[in-house]
Amino acid sequence: MSVCAAPESSESNVKKKIRAIQYGVGPIGASIARLLREKKAIQICGAIDTDPAKIGRDLGEVVGAADAPWGVKISGHANEVLDQAADVVIHSTSSSLPKVMDQLLACLEAESCVVSTCEELSFPYRTYPELAAKLDTAAKDWGVALVGTGINPGFVMDKLVITLAAVAQRIEHAKALRIVDASTRRMPLQKKIGAGLTVEEFTAQVAAGVIKHVGLPESVAMIADSLNLPVEQITETIEPVVAQERVQTGFLTVEAGQAAGVHQIARGIGGGKELVYLELQMYVGAKNPADTVELTGHPAVSLTIPGGCHGDIATASVVVNTIPAILDAPAGLRTSRDLPIGFFSPDAKP
Amino acid sequence: MSVCAAPESSESNVKKKIRAIQYGVGPIGASIARLLREKKAIQICGAIDTDPAKIGRDLGEVVGAADAPWGVKISGHANEVLDQAADVVIHSTSSSLPKVMDQLLACLEAESCVVSTCEELSFPYRTYPELAAKLDTAAKDWGVALVGTGINPGFVMDKLVITLAAVAQRIEHAKALRIVDASTRRMPLQKKIGAGLTVEEFTAQVAAGVIKHVGLPESVAMIADSLNLPVEQITETIEPVVAQERVQTGFLTVEAGQAAGVHQIARGIGGGKELVYLELQMYVGAKNPADTVELTGHPAVSLTIPGGCHGDIATASVVVNTIPAILDAPAGLRTSRDLPIGFFSPDAKP
Repeated sequence: MSVCAAPESSESNVKKKIRAIQYGVGPIGASIARLLREKKAIQICGAIDTDPAKIGRDLGEVVGAADAPWGVKISGHANEVLDQAADVVIHSTSSSLPKVMDQLLACLEAESCVVSTCEELSFPYRTYPELAAKLDTAAKDWGVALVGTGINPGFVMDKLVITLAAVAQRIEHAKALRIVDASTRRMPLQKKIGAGLTVEEFTAQVAAGVIKHVGLPESVAMIADSLNLPVEQITETIEPVVAQERVQTGFLTVEAGQAAGVHQIARGIGGGKELVYLELQMYVGAKNPADTVELTGHPAVSLTIPGGCHGDIATASVVVNTIPAILDAPAGLRTSRDLPIGFFSPDAKP
Repeated sequence: MSVCAAPESSESNVKKKIRAIQYGVGPIGASIARLLREKKAIQICGAIDTDPAKIGRDLGEVVGAADAPWGVKISGHANEVLDQAADVVIHSTSSSLPKVMDQLLACLEAESCVVSTCEELSFPYRTYPELAAKLDTAAKDWGVALVGTGINPGFVMDKLVITLAAVAQRIEHAKALRIVDASTRRMPLQKKIGAGLTVEEFTAQVAAGVIKHVGLPESVAMIADSLNLPVEQITETIEPVVAQERVQTGFLTVEAGQAAGVHQIARGIGGGKELVYLELQMYVGAKNPADTVELTGHPAVSLTIPGGCHGDIATASVVVNTIPAILDAPAGLRTSRDLPIGFFSPDAKP
């Protein structure tokens, strides 16, 4: 018996388990499902995916769990699964908000809260104000809350910036720099960032919209709104990081002169001045991976996470750790900056 | 017109200013009042202090504001000031929760939310469960919320630890280390930490309860509860940091061999193991001031604020930046970990 419990913790002893549905069982959805499984307070009561190779199979087997089977079949019929009216749906199907609108609305209509990895949902008011309003209205109509989050967007280049701002009295400029060594990441990610392409191939894939980390403008907008920085325009550039020497990963080889990954910069500009600067370097062989936040103002303050947050692990963490907060949030569309995110212990009582 | 505004921001254009009362005009209360004055969304409508040297004088003059007088008189009659039913009372009178209970209850009865710097209020469930329950009930009865916060306790050794935990899947141990160079701090603080005393004098003042930073056990308890670490016992030690060489500050001189400040350690122990470790070094001449958080678990993650958060400035910041969150919080007793703290811009609309 802990001596430290706030009353909320003891009251919750009498509650039932949180019933959760995993919507989307790709690489991120799978890592989320494995993490959900570790939480004693959660019961996974359904899973949805459109991949014929997954439909009908046990979720635990598909996600490579040591304790499979879990007795939860993956279904291609979203509405049948959602009809169970789970407490929360963990949604991980696409970065594009327009593409997932119908999926999200179906979750809300089923009276389930939603935590989604959809990057464009993380702060949708700027790019998709009408979709944001539609989701907010639907969520309020059904008495549930939804949020788009993850490590980035959702935490390290926005929520953490805004949280650090608590120590500031005046802020003139906000910067976040994320340097990720993609050598330690899954193969699809190494390919997605263009590692091993020629610079010409890389440029062509950027132009085709294939190579892109989605979410930096959303983070700029969230920061600007939260810190009251008068950003009028958000710009974004994507360049290759060109390998200076050969880099060998577990999955591929990058020769000197080839693209090692992406170098993406988003800026929030207002009154002719840069107010927000977000820089993402994600490439194989990165020497000094770290997440850094810098606030210019009174007082100036900065923060560094040496080594940086591991993208795949931390996205699953942030998403699952957000579950208690979204269940507790007022109905409507929320963003990570609105929620007091903390830690969802594997041993937490339901 | 910003392109980034979430709907909440534009809706709030029509609201009146936030009416605030400053309760306690000591050094911290004064720095809070000066910061309140910078916020266009806030109207300071009253001030309370018991010091006869301050009663009847203009608040702006007493806090040394360049734009004094403010037209707000400091009153010794708390209830008369509180009767205005301000939206929020900023309370900064004592570290001791039992000592300020009547003050806090009077604020709640006046139907005002409260942000207090009372360290023992930051997480009172362990040491004062009955007082915590009484405040929670009163706040709910009157439909308002209260919180105890500041830089420490309230942010850098608890809220920030819990926020960083969002990236973790399992946590076995949490550590926070705060090294403060007191040379840059106000004279009362340099004296309060025993700088310039002999080691014997220091030890006597610790025994007398004069030298002590209040709040580490509260932070241990908040972390333990939030991370679900089964802490059964919290220990605390206070030792002098002994100067290795002469240190000269703007206010005093510390000779080699004298106390330069405090070295305080709090531990949360459970099942015979240390689960939480908080270490505060606050002394004149500290070489590498910094705030550091380290989580052991999966993944291990750490965070550093080089130079550390300046205690006086950041306490005022955290308290004032908490105002929007406490006004928006459900009625009752809250702690900093429950609130999505952000930044209260000087230019924010009411």
